[in-house]
Amino acid sequence: MKHIDGGITAVQGIRAAGIHAGIKKDNQKDLALVESITPAIAAGVFTKNSVTAAPVILCREHLVDPTIQAIIINSGNANACTGEQGMINAQNMAALTAEQLGIPTEHILVSSTGVIGQQLPMDVIESGIHEAVKQLSSEGGADAAEAIMTTDTHPKSVAVEIDIDGKPIRIGGIAKGSGMIAPNMATMLSYITTDACMTSDILQTALTQVADDTYNLLTVDTDRSTNDTVILLSTCKAENSEIHQTDGSNYDAFYEGLLQVCTELVKMLARDGEGATKLVEVVIQNAKNRDDAEKAARAVAESPLVKTAVFANDANWGRIMMAIGKSGAEFDPYNVDVMLQDYVLVKNGMDAGYDEEIATKLFDNDPVRLVINLREGDSGITMWTCDYSYDYIRINADYRT
Amino acid sequence: MKHIDGGITAVQGIRAAGIHAGIKKDNQKDLALVESITPAIAAGVFTKNSVTAAPVILCREHLVDPTIQAIIINSGNANACTGEQGMINAQNMAALTAEQLGIPTEHILVSSTGVIGQQLPMDVIESGIHEAVKQLSSEGGADAAEAIMTTDTHPKSVAVEIDIDGKPIRIGGIAKGSGMIAPNMATMLSYITTDACMTSDILQTALTQVADDTYNLLTVDTDRSTNDTVILLSTCKAENSEIHQTDGSNYDAFYEGLLQVCTELVKMLARDGEGATKLVEVVIQNAKNRDDAEKAARAVAESPLVKTAVFANDANWGRIMMAIGKSGAEFDPYNVDVMLQDYVLVKNGMDAGYDEEIATKLFDNDPVRLVINLREGDSGITMWTCDYSYDYIRINADYRT
Repeated sequence: MKHIDGGITAVQGIRAAGIHAGIKKDNQKDLALVESITPAIAAGVFTKNSVTAAPVILCREHLVDPTIQAIIINSGNANACTGEQGMINAQNMAALTAEQLGIPTEHILVSSTGVIGQQLPMDVIESGIHEAVKQLSSEGGADAAEAIMTTDTHPKSVAVEIDIDGKPIRIGGIAKGSGMIAPNMATMLSYITTDACMTSDILQTALTQVADDTYNLLTVDTDRSTNDTVILLSTCKAENSEIHQTDGSNYDAFYEGLLQVCTELVKMLARDGEGATKLVEVVIQNAKNRDDAEKAARAVAESPLVKTAVFANDANWGRIMMAIGKSGAEFDPYNVDVMLQDYVLVKNGMDAGYDEEIATKLFDNDPVRLVINLREGDSGITMWTCDYSYDYIRINADYRT
Repeated sequence: MKHIDGGITAVQGIRAAGIHAGIKKDNQKDLALVESITPAIAAGVFTKNSVTAAPVILCREHLVDPTIQAIIINSGNANACTGEQGMINAQNMAALTAEQLGIPTEHILVSSTGVIGQQLPMDVIESGIHEAVKQLSSEGGADAAEAIMTTDTHPKSVAVEIDIDGKPIRIGGIAKGSGMIAPNMATMLSYITTDACMTSDILQTALTQVADDTYNLLTVDTDRSTNDTVILLSTCKAENSEIHQTDGSNYDAFYEGLLQVCTELVKMLARDGEGATKLVEVVIQNAKNRDDAEKAARAVAESPLVKTAVFANDANWGRIMMAIGKSGAEFDPYNVDVMLQDYVLVKNGMDAGYDEEIATKLFDNDPVRLVINLREGDSGITMWTCDYSYDYIRINADYRT
């Protein structure tokens, strides 16, 4: 596997654009278009929030048939809690894009991210779609990555090349979101393209599996957006023999490539979490089962007290013990070890007699790794988050006012 | 029901003391003793965290027989994650107190709050217990309220007088905790005394019921301590006819009095949450059932995005919709109304066309009330929390360093 340039447009058959339509102020890019030059297939995973934004409802409808050729995405307005008019606007975004590209409306997916509860400015979106279609280019990946940003401090893009059947296969991805899961400006959106050829069932299976180990193990602030969306689009231009089962080395190779792209995007998202000063990996070892591992990891990764301690370079292991204790995971507290990087803070549930100065310096590592060995079974997990700083409060307190 | 002075020592037969033993620096009080002059009965509710501190384990053991005569409480050290030596120290705190008071060790309860993972300084605790016994007084309630504090900015104490059988009955309470539920300095401890006479079963039933509607509906930062403890001690000095069933006006009167005391303490705790600038009541109306009401209330009360918006006087109702949407409670988003105090922000899941300036001014109310009508059933709940400010980060980032 090797890293390559170009993000989503590194993939054969993909064009993209990112422009300023006028939804956001200050000439910031706010409309992205991703297109496959021929009909492609797509898979998706979406927010589980029961308050679901209009574009998410539309994507689910259009993905009943996995044939998809383009994705139109705006930032600056989430088109959530917008009722019937919101659904009409989402459909119009698809219809306007379809008309410009000369393809069926149901082959278009739509995403929106930004403020909740306001109707989309359809006039600027309509002229924006005209412009975006004109700008489509096989070098447009970087512009698209920029146009989907909200409170992100920088665009997030990655691409890799792998080998299947002796053919070079490319997988590219972009993502945005500064909380995973924040309703205003921090919806998590991610779009992955590939030229690997596979059935739509296999495409969906691969995305669902990888999402469980990447996007679903990212947490910035425990909140979950009304708009979270991950789309995987396959152009099938690599001319590998079609993958139609999850057994075998071809699927494994694709899975590894997809996992790599998504893991890198997730780490970029956590590192750019609102107010984050550190990327934090919470590693649970030897949990009784996957469910317990995830519960324990999530309790640590979501604890405001753990996150403020990490911000302060404070090896405050009592907060980690508290967090796993409240998680519901099964373990004996006096069997637990806690490490910061490889340095043992807690041995058998008690102070290991570590040196505070050494521990404090270990917070300079990137990422900061909090490793908890539960000694209860053989299940492990890694979860990604960031610390809580003054800027988290500032960003979220000041945003709308 | 009328409010009276004196806190826990307003109750007949109760003496208390609060002194500086030497666990904390700067001459701050750090050891409290609450005593019934004759054997009393007690009920307790404790943390559900599976990492349980030694004194909580000891309390559970000593409450197998509900006869209790005194409670010894230290602040500055949680005696949690302290292994076998921690259990020995908790037992020694009980034994030293029992010896000084001339009563059996198993009639003593013990609590600790403060830093996790360090052994108690038993020498200063021993001399402190000698001193606390000397200071016991029927005016000592305020000193005890002060001695259990950690990051609290002020002591929390309340007492009421009710009438049962024409006899005046008193219920007094103290509490500490600046996060409900923070492992270092913010364990929630509360001690309630009463001279009402009832069986130990009824005492426990009343406490469990009231705790579900008060302490268990308080959240500052989602974290749950290893040491959380609520004890209700009855001296039976009021000479009312013993209450031995939950049916009837005598139980109802006691229940109402206890609910009043605990509700007031819980509001004091939320208002003094770490870094709090506002007390927030989250009111869920017309949920399908109690479970859904609590899920929805908790999701709103624990959302960092909602709490930072309240800090900023920002009527950011999209965050409230997001929070109830992720809660798992059943409802139709387009049936939901959201009110700030009585002012309608959201009607049928969409912007009610409210005035931002009016809404901003409503945050000057105390408490700030976020009212969500789910229109799904007839179950309601009120939950208490506070906002998230810069000071939450400061307090929790700077505490140990």
